[in-house]
Amino acid sequence: MIDIDQYLEHEKEIINRALINNLPAVEHSVVNEAMRYSLNAGGKRLRPILTIAAAKTLGSEDESIIEVACALEYIHTYSLIHDDLPAMDDSKLRRGKPTCHCVYDDAVAILAGDGLLTLAFETVAKYGSRAGYEKKAIGILAELTDAAGVNGMIGGQTLDLAAEGNNLSLDEIDKISLMKTGALLRAAVVCGGIAADASESQLEALSGYALNIGSAFQVVDDLLDYESTTEEMGKPAGADQVRAKATYPAVLGLEGARKRAEALYEQALAALDDLCCPAEILREIAKKLVYRTK
Amino acid sequence: MIDIDQYLEHEKEIINRALINNLPAVEHSVVNEAMRYSLNAGGKRLRPILTIAAAKTLGSEDESIIEVACALEYIHTYSLIHDDLPAMDDSKLRRGKPTCHCVYDDAVAILAGDGLLTLAFETVAKYGSRAGYEKKAIGILAELTDAAGVNGMIGGQTLDLAAEGNNLSLDEIDKISLMKTGALLRAAVVCGGIAADASESQLEALSGYALNIGSAFQVVDDLLDYESTTEEMGKPAGADQVRAKATYPAVLGLEGARKRAEALYEQALAALDDLCCPAEILREIAKKLVYRTK
Repeated sequence: MIDIDQYLEHEKEIINRALINNLPAVEHSVVNEAMRYSLNAGGKRLRPILTIAAAKTLGSEDESIIEVACALEYIHTYSLIHDDLPAMDDSKLRRGKPTCHCVYDDAVAILAGDGLLTLAFETVAKYGSRAGYEKKAIGILAELTDAAGVNGMIGGQTLDLAAEGNNLSLDEIDKISLMKTGALLRAAVVCGGIAADASESQLEALSGYALNIGSAFQVVDDLLDYESTTEEMGKPAGADQVRAKATYPAVLGLEGARKRAEALYEQALAALDDLCCPAEILREIAKKLVYRTK
Repeated sequence: MIDIDQYLEHEKEIINRALINNLPAVEHSVVNEAMRYSLNAGGKRLRPILTIAAAKTLGSEDESIIEVACALEYIHTYSLIHDDLPAMDDSKLRRGKPTCHCVYDDAVAILAGDGLLTLAFETVAKYGSRAGYEKKAIGILAELTDAAGVNGMIGGQTLDLAAEGNNLSLDEIDKISLMKTGALLRAAVVCGGIAADASESQLEALSGYALNIGSAFQVVDDLLDYESTTEEMGKPAGADQVRAKATYPAVLGLEGARKRAEALYEQALAALDDLCCPAEILREIAKKLVYRTK
């Protein structure tokens, strides 16, 4: 039985170091500084952790997986920087720290996001420059660009901006959540599989696992948001107020949302049964995600 | 002797069709519409034309080069959309048409740029998904991310924003021009070479050619800008006024800038001598670029 908290902490340290080490060497530049600032602004490093865990689960000990893992976090961080811009969600704080455009300015934040997106693919090129890695790298590139593109994160953010203030159906919330969050989480796990030479059926199992934890992750996020709002207000947030935001608790109710998260968790574990190898770490990560309290 | 105007027109048509055909299929989405709008807003298609010309020069008849060519134009178009944003250069018109954020809004323009940058690498993944193309695609990915990243276009735009209103030395103007324009033009030509299985020394010759026409291109751009300003004002623009913008005519004088463009043109042609194969199209393109009047 592994100590999952210790495992996650250890992985996070390795990833944090690699994220900075893989930044391109350039002369003092404000955009580089901004990229570094946003990379250092914290975060669970969930995507790179999943990439490495998926590869390890399939028996790979290849350390160059860290480059693929970094690419995932670079894409995630770029999307946060751009989403936070005044023209988009206009967020001044993230994880308690001033957002990139508040510390620097909008121009630098746009360029830092562009820089991290480009760096993600540069890191994939580096991974694929090893003899015998080319085909895997191309597969990884296809997964990442699909998840990040207009059918994934960019499309999801577009729908999200358009939906502001509207009532959404469960199907619509599911769609936005899948595109904004699910697609990259799925890519994180699947890319780990590709790097470890997974078979088609193993990739399918990993994909099923990831899509279910991705959905569960979003439901739990909404639940935690609801609870922290309630806490701040010192009394339960009223149903109407909750409904003004298109969230899972708003549409399913608190109890319904909790049940949904648990059902998705069970489906994620069931998907792993088809992997044909023990997947303790992936199971423990799923549990952490669904039963987290922050 | 080829008719270069007819050649360029023909290539442009092929490229224009492919640029739209390679857009991802998605349901009606405003971001897709914005990507399409900016792709259709004109342009010489210089980069994709160079990619195809370089591959043809080395004897390749492989039609999948069009995907690599499209990737170049997607990156170029993304950079124009982001550079035009109010937070950056705040340009309302480009090639006589309203810029992307003026037709849509800042959020859509940011996302459309992100979408095109991602699509560029998706198109490289598609190119590299063919058996035997993986290694070439990884080489192309490395060139493109290097040219587009913080040591290339993003770094150049950062320096350019920081330089606004300052007097720059010739070295500083050269550096910004190389990063903002030269790096992607170089990548365009070199990627054509990689796709055509160029040798190391051939890639070097292509790189030398491209860097010289890239520099010449920027000098001529500045000269044409100067002349159109003069024309609009109905009298020659005063030297001080010219100097307020850090341009080649401002630093070298009109005559000096013209001589520099011609010297760079000669160096570009000389670089092609090391290619060991006739390069009529590349020579003719260089001539068109340097002796253009718009």
